[in-house]
Amino acid sequence: MAVAKGRDARFMRIAIKKTVEGIKDGQTPFGAAIVKDGKLICAAHNVVWDTMDITAHGEVNAIRIACRRLGTIDLSGCTIYSTCEPCPMCFSAIHWAKISRIVFGATIADAKSAGFRELEITNAQMKRMGKSKIKIKGGVLRSECLRLFALFRKHEGRKKLY
Amino acid sequence: MAVAKGRDARFMRIAIKKTVEGIKDGQTPFGAAIVKDGKLICAAHNVVWDTMDITAHGEVNAIRIACRRLGTIDLSGCTIYSTCEPCPMCFSAIHWAKISRIVFGATIADAKSAGFRELEITNAQMKRMGKSKIKIKGGVLRSECLRLFALFRKHEGRKKLY
Repeated sequence: MAVAKGRDARFMRIAIKKTVEGIKDGQTPFGAAIVKDGKLICAAHNVVWDTMDITAHGEVNAIRIACRRLGTIDLSGCTIYSTCEPCPMCFSAIHWAKISRIVFGATIADAKSAGFRELEITNAQMKRMGKSKIKIKGGVLRSECLRLFALFRKHEGRKKLY
Repeated sequence: MAVAKGRDARFMRIAIKKTVEGIKDGQTPFGAAIVKDGKLICAAHNVVWDTMDITAHGEVNAIRIACRRLGTIDLSGCTIYSTCEPCPMCFSAIHWAKISRIVFGATIADAKSAGFRELEITNAQMKRMGKSKIKIKGGVLRSECLRLFALFRKHEGRKKLY
């Protein structure tokens, strides 16, 4: 599975790079990329503070952009790469968009440890309870994704989190 | 509790009225109203088809509008009235927005019976698993909210649901 692993790492690095841009722009340390048939559709970071839209997480933002770019609300066949395990809002947005696969780096528990006010329900729990068929792969470049939290803290200092 | 009940019914009727507007405009039968200190902040219906944004459920749309109107991402002290029990995406958006109370009419199981592709996880389950302190009251004007599904079907015929 070396090739598949390589591809997942490659797209995760794109999500990480976009997240770093977000941090430098004063946003929180979360980003995502959406890929279809091996091609990047879009990458986006969280823009909650920038847009005063509390729902504008990295994944939600990426899904909205992908729907516009592809001209559809049906993202079947797409994979979403997220630097952090999607929160239940984002997991459910991914469900509604019919995305086929989630690949994530850090976990919701990691985000909570970093100070974010998470509903601590894992993607595996959401999948099981919601009887979803989505494929999920966690832990891809987790240590690089964890470093985003440290970079954010260094950048934002003691800024109050939402 | 007659007064509280009367107030809840009054604001739910505003959400229902907005949902009927949405149905007539070709949208799906879901709407919400956000209230603070007894005053209506906004009412909104689902605009997924209108905006090609799969995340634009009635509650998410209402939260986005309320944040803009109040100039904040913190909706503490607000109540959200939803014609249908918020799906896990909307429940979690409500959590992030720090809304204090959810009042809903029909249930997620009702929406599933009406043909919508729900992740069948109740608000009570989300609250318990996510250790949320949000107050939840269901069944407010449920039969009127259920009629919205029938009105939608009559209007949209056999249109494919997302």
